[in-house]
Amino acid sequence: MAGYHNDKDQLLRRLRRVEGQIRGLQRMVDTDTYCIDTLTQVSAATKALQSVALHLLDSHLAHCVHDAIAAGGAEADAKVAEASQAIARLMRA
Amino acid sequence: MAGYHNDKDQLLRRLRRVEGQIRGLQRMVDTDTYCIDTLTQVSAATKALQSVALHLLDSHLAHCVHDAIAAGGAEADAKVAEASQAIARLMRA
Amino acid sequence: MAGYHNDKDQLLRRLRRVEGQIRGLQRMVDTDTYCIDTLTQVSAATKALQSVALHLLDSHLAHCVHDAIAAGGAEADAKVAEASQAIARLMRA
Amino acid sequence: MAGYHNDKDQLLRRLRRVEGQIRGLQRMVDTDTYCIDTLTQVSAATKALQSVALHLLDSHLAHCVHDAIAAGGAEADAKVAEASQAIARLMRA
Repeated sequence: MAGYHNDKDQLLRRLRRVEGQIRGLQRMVDTDTYCIDTLTQVSAATKALQSVALHLLDSHLAHCVHDAIAAGGAEADAKVAEASQAIARLMRA
Repeated sequence: MAGYHNDKDQLLRRLRRVEGQIRGLQRMVDTDTYCIDTLTQVSAATKALQSVALHLLDSHLAHCVHDAIAAGGAEADAKVAEASQAIARLMRA
Repeated sequence: MAGYHNDKDQLLRRLRRVEGQIRGLQRMVDTDTYCIDTLTQVSAATKALQSVALHLLDSHLAHCVHDAIAAGGAEADAKVAEASQAIARLMRA
Repeated sequence: MAGYHNDKDQLLRRLRRVEGQIRGLQRMVDTDTYCIDTLTQVSAATKALQSVALHLLDSHLAHCVHDAIAAGGAEADAKVAEASQAIARLMRA
């Protein structure tokens, strides 16, 4: 089970809302909506995605990384390094 | 017509790809995909959205802002201020 | 003269404040300040730098890009393309 | 001792380099350097600061958060929540 297992419903609701924002963006582009209004919607969708990312990361630290450290051994270091790389990818996205 | 009018097909293709990424994310969450793999997909979708934003902004400067400045008058200053605010929103997204 | 010529004093004040934040960070690291407090200061310095960037960009659009467009010709398109590339670099920083 | 204790020399070297970049920026602004070149230097300094942040975060997870989890108890959850908040601040910076 993934670290976010208990939050799946909330995460799926948020992702469906992002999907709705992306479909809304397609309608906006299709109907030549003013660039700045379209950009505002892109910013909102990006913010919503970043918030999903923070939620996933938080659950990952609280469960997967937590459990690997509590179990001890080399796996713990590997999990921390892997989390750091994911954070780096998010900050550069 | 919006500043991106001539690039609509390309923008719509890109947004449909982002929509596919978001739907892929829902399947990943639904099937308890490992957090880090899910996060990598969130980073990819965020990057794709940012690239749509840069495209919209570029077209906006090249057409709407360009035309307002070429026409002269107070409208030009308002357009530049509005573009600056949109850039600020994108950087803080 | 640069696009930000009339705002030089304000920009220099802000940059000196960022310099102070970076020197403060060196003292924090040197005295083993708690990681999270040090990170909070890094976030603050990054935010201050981003705000300098937005100011520079705004002046650039309002003066350099504006004047190139008002003058007309190929120079205008080059200026817009160059500004778009600078915005892309800032968003990926 | 902070989580980054063993990396202090490297972190201080990097922060001194960022300080040099900020002082360089002041000279650039003072001498009316072209906006785009100044912005490129702001992007470079921001990137260098983000890289310091990732280093601090990595050490924090590998030491402070790691040790709190290994010791067990409520402190572990508090450390994970605190780290998540710091990551959120960095992503919004």
